[in-house]
Amino acid sequence: MVTTPRVPKDADLRRADSLAREIFSDIANKWALLIIDVLGKRTMRFSELRKEVEGVSHKMLTQNLRTLERDGLVHREVYPTVPPRVEYRLTEPGLGLLTACDAICAWTQQNYTYINSARARFDT
Amino acid sequence: MVTTPRVPKDADLRRADSLAREIFSDIANKWALLIIDVLGKRTMRFSELRKEVEGVSHKMLTQNLRTLERDGLVHREVYPTVPPRVEYRLTEPGLGLLTACDAICAWTQQNYTYINSARARFDT
Repeated sequence: MVTTPRVPKDADLRRADSLAREIFSDIANKWALLIIDVLGKRTMRFSELRKEVEGVSHKMLTQNLRTLERDGLVHREVYPTVPPRVEYRLTEPGLGLLTACDAICAWTQQNYTYINSARARFDT
Repeated sequence: MVTTPRVPKDADLRRADSLAREIFSDIANKWALLIIDVLGKRTMRFSELRKEVEGVSHKMLTQNLRTLERDGLVHREVYPTVPPRVEYRLTEPGLGLLTACDAICAWTQQNYTYINSARARFDT
């Protein structure tokens, strides 16, 4: 076992029943990470998010925004206009996750040609 | 539009049809990231990986390992013993992704109590 005994149970990502694993499942998916990446630039409305995260369905965007809001990573602001204007932005902890998220995005952009070649080799 | 025009089409994560987005979908999921995290410690056999990434099904582990192998991030070594011994380890680019992956894992471990409180507030 590689697991270090110093990690409290709830913080242990390798345990299927830990709180950390449950939270990790919320954020370790492509839509959540892309939403965080895009909101890292500026506050956006739902329709703008749908444009920026190309390919996300209305349902997936709604679900992920709600999960991220519940987790305290995204703040949803409703302005009392007619019709009401709703804007989303990252909270302080959400901005912390943005750094990690950016690292995965940057890695993907730096390595996609290598991966493409690796795939071609694997497939032959 | 926030999209910067300098990014080549294939490297643009916000485009649904880019190569970068396709690759991002392979790695931006909890099982792939947990596998990379665990293999960051040392070379492992399938059965060891299943123990370390608690909760992963045989099918999901097989699928994700194959995807990561195809992408050139995990190397699968078969030793000609009886029965054959199969070991998995991160490649050089896989080790590069490990850094980004570690950042998400570390963030989760540092923020899970905050998120737990945020959830409690949201649910009331």
